[in-house]
Amino acid sequence: MAVIRNKTGKGNLLYAQSGGVTAVINATACAVIQACRRHRVGVYAGRNGIIGVLREELIDLAREDASAIAALRYTPGGAFGSCRFKLKSLEADRARYERLIDVLRAHDIRYFLYNGGNDSADTSLKISRLSAELGYPLNVIGVPKTVDNDLPVTDSCPGFGSVAKYTAVSIAEASLDVESMCESSTKVFIMEVMGRHAGWIAGAAGLAATHRDAAPHIILFPEVPFDQESFLARVKATVERVGYCSVVVSEGLKNRDGKFLADAGTVDAFGHVQLGGGGVGPLLAQIVKDKLGYKFHWAVPDYLQRSARHLASKSDVEQAYAVGKAAVEYALAGKSAVMPVIKRTSSSPFKWKIQAAPLDQIANIEKKLPSNFITRDGYGITAAARKYFEPLIRGEDRPPYDATTGLPKYARLKRVLVKKKLPRYDIAD
Amino acid sequence: MAVIRNKTGKGNLLYAQSGGVTAVINATACAVIQACRRHRVGVYAGRNGIIGVLREELIDLAREDASAIAALRYTPGGAFGSCRFKLKSLEADRARYERLIDVLRAHDIRYFLYNGGNDSADTSLKISRLSAELGYPLNVIGVPKTVDNDLPVTDSCPGFGSVAKYTAVSIAEASLDVESMCESSTKVFIMEVMGRHAGWIAGAAGLAATHRDAAPHIILFPEVPFDQESFLARVKATVERVGYCSVVVSEGLKNRDGKFLADAGTVDAFGHVQLGGGGVGPLLAQIVKDKLGYKFHWAVPDYLQRSARHLASKSDVEQAYAVGKAAVEYALAGKSAVMPVIKRTSSSPFKWKIQAAPLDQIANIEKKLPSNFITRDGYGITAAARKYFEPLIRGEDRPPYDATTGLPKYARLKRVLVKKKLPRYDIAD
Repeated sequence: MAVIRNKTGKGNLLYAQSGGVTAVINATACAVIQACRRHRVGVYAGRNGIIGVLREELIDLAREDASAIAALRYTPGGAFGSCRFKLKSLEADRARYERLIDVLRAHDIRYFLYNGGNDSADTSLKISRLSAELGYPLNVIGVPKTVDNDLPVTDSCPGFGSVAKYTAVSIAEASLDVESMCESSTKVFIMEVMGRHAGWIAGAAGLAATHRDAAPHIILFPEVPFDQESFLARVKATVERVGYCSVVVSEGLKNRDGKFLADAGTVDAFGHVQLGGGGVGPLLAQIVKDKLGYKFHWAVPDYLQRSARHLASKSDVEQAYAVGKAAVEYALAGKSAVMPVIKRTSSSPFKWKIQAAPLDQIANIEKKLPSNFITRDGYGITAAARKYFEPLIRGEDRPPYDATTGLPKYARLKRVLVKKKLPRYDIAD
Repeated sequence: MAVIRNKTGKGNLLYAQSGGVTAVINATACAVIQACRRHRVGVYAGRNGIIGVLREELIDLAREDASAIAALRYTPGGAFGSCRFKLKSLEADRARYERLIDVLRAHDIRYFLYNGGNDSADTSLKISRLSAELGYPLNVIGVPKTVDNDLPVTDSCPGFGSVAKYTAVSIAEASLDVESMCESSTKVFIMEVMGRHAGWIAGAAGLAATHRDAAPHIILFPEVPFDQESFLARVKATVERVGYCSVVVSEGLKNRDGKFLADAGTVDAFGHVQLGGGGVGPLLAQIVKDKLGYKFHWAVPDYLQRSARHLASKSDVEQAYAVGKAAVEYALAGKSAVMPVIKRTSSSPFKWKIQAAPLDQIANIEKKLPSNFITRDGYGITAAARKYFEPLIRGEDRPPYDATTGLPKYARLKRVLVKKKLPRYDIAD
């Protein structure tokens, strides 16, 4: 269906965040708002993402100081709130889509920027289609974001570079600690990282292994079925050769039947009951203890890894800002149903540009770790992977710190809502 | 017993690290080695701490480049290896103590610097006494180090300020993430921190709560017996008022009978089996889920928190360096059986000085969190605590990063051993 585009240059812009937030999604928000201000376009944000749009809870960004907007560039989390709320097909969720258009129309919103992953790209596409069907001129831009790095077309996803840097630095540091103590204390250290379906984050941890026998010694990917015997043999050999063994495991590690190891059923198979939401890291540590008798420690940084703005990658922050800026420019230039994606032109020196990709090439497609990124034995990353990952964690981009409290000076916005014009709407309806 | 001091200004100095390492213990090592080089005193390090001294495995620090020594200032872990190996009383472990003196004598070591916590202070004291008894002139200096911050006399312990900063920044960042998503996702976040016997680290997390309703909303200290009903009521009230609840729990949280919650027995009481070494964080998360039904996440940073040199506190690094430098100066000036401790003279601006304290005032004494640091309800920190903690996390002291790999440039030493002069010794004997 042909998209009816807004080429008038009039109307307001709405920005909403979607899905799990990152250390740099607010850098994208910062770029969007700063670009709107430069172009004198009114700009709102959905409170808690699409939920707020449905409820007509729109944050009036004109009320925020320029300094607070600038500080978004280095503030983690989602400054306006995000949500896990997936719209179904246009047929199944027709009333909700129509409500969205009603809200946009009521506030003369002609540009909608939806900052998220696969699902959000799909929702953006549907909103674009419905607005055309309803004859409401609207430019819809999907803006990439996800620590999972699983969007197709784009070279990488803003948010990933920073979690990659956090993961590589953390395993390097913790392994120096373990190495110091291994003669008489912990011999095996296991760090569980995010990545339920793809091993991008686990793979990036491999960047820490810059020399022979450097940690991590074993990486367990969701893409490689877990083989307990082979794993234990590798742990044992590493402890005997190096003195200790550092393991990075993806939360999405599966057994040969394709079941998550962290799931209760699998855990039961080892004689244990799932505890506190499981965790494959603690489970593997217990297996190592039971079978090899080594003293172990495990870490699960969980949200710490995706919110660690204090250790953000400069490349990542720059890309997060660039996609936000481009999204506004595309929208104002009359583009719709596209996403600004990152096209890498050189790894060393790292060069990249932003270009527009059609959303229908991106929606609902998941990019897995390429098989040539994983070593033949399944436990490490290749030179090709290193070439890909390394530029993404290059450079530091630090928040300012308060000299008295010793803490980063993260932005706090006023988040004043625009006056409602429509009847109340219950999203549970 | 009177100590026979070495006032000759001759002989070599031996430095050894002991117990769990920290993000800044190598800054102390750096100071020791640089001071020895300035004073033209030969300096060795025990490989893996006292174990290496017993085995006559002494690292020849003359073989290390000045640049590598300088880089120790910003390298986490223990550069020469540390150990968990406690010497018993002089009577029970006489042979080992005599072996130590033999090794020192064989390499003309007249100054022994032992960098650790309570146990190490006790060992230092015993070595000092035995050397006097044996008529071997030796100046023994205990050098403070411990993330647990539980040494008496000193205002704080090098290593603590950095883990405190890591903990406060991490809970602030992760809570921004949780706050962003709480409308439709995680409502309760629980971060487990170190501190088996004292709540210093948990308390420092409270620094992140810089304004009303800021995270962490609940801190659980080892000093306050866990009351499940009161805790759950507090979680519920916080979620209802703020939208989410961030909890920091010390690994050493105990029930009213004084038993660790993380221990299997306690876990069984809730119908769960201990998994992968337990963890009170996952356990509490499960209790919240079972009783309140909230979606939860938990994090256990484990070694990441004490090795996070990338986020070290400048105050902490400066103090770690200062105690190392003072230790050498005390030793060369003929002092023995003392520890350089930190005396705070002002909190704002933060002023402190180093002074010598007798080891017998420090050995085996554990400093708990003062009761006036914990709010009356038991779930937060007071203004007095904030006044104490805040200067310790002030300032940043960042490692240099490699422009290509994007990783910190941590030191790697040669660690060449000095030629042995004594017969082989098996420490298991």
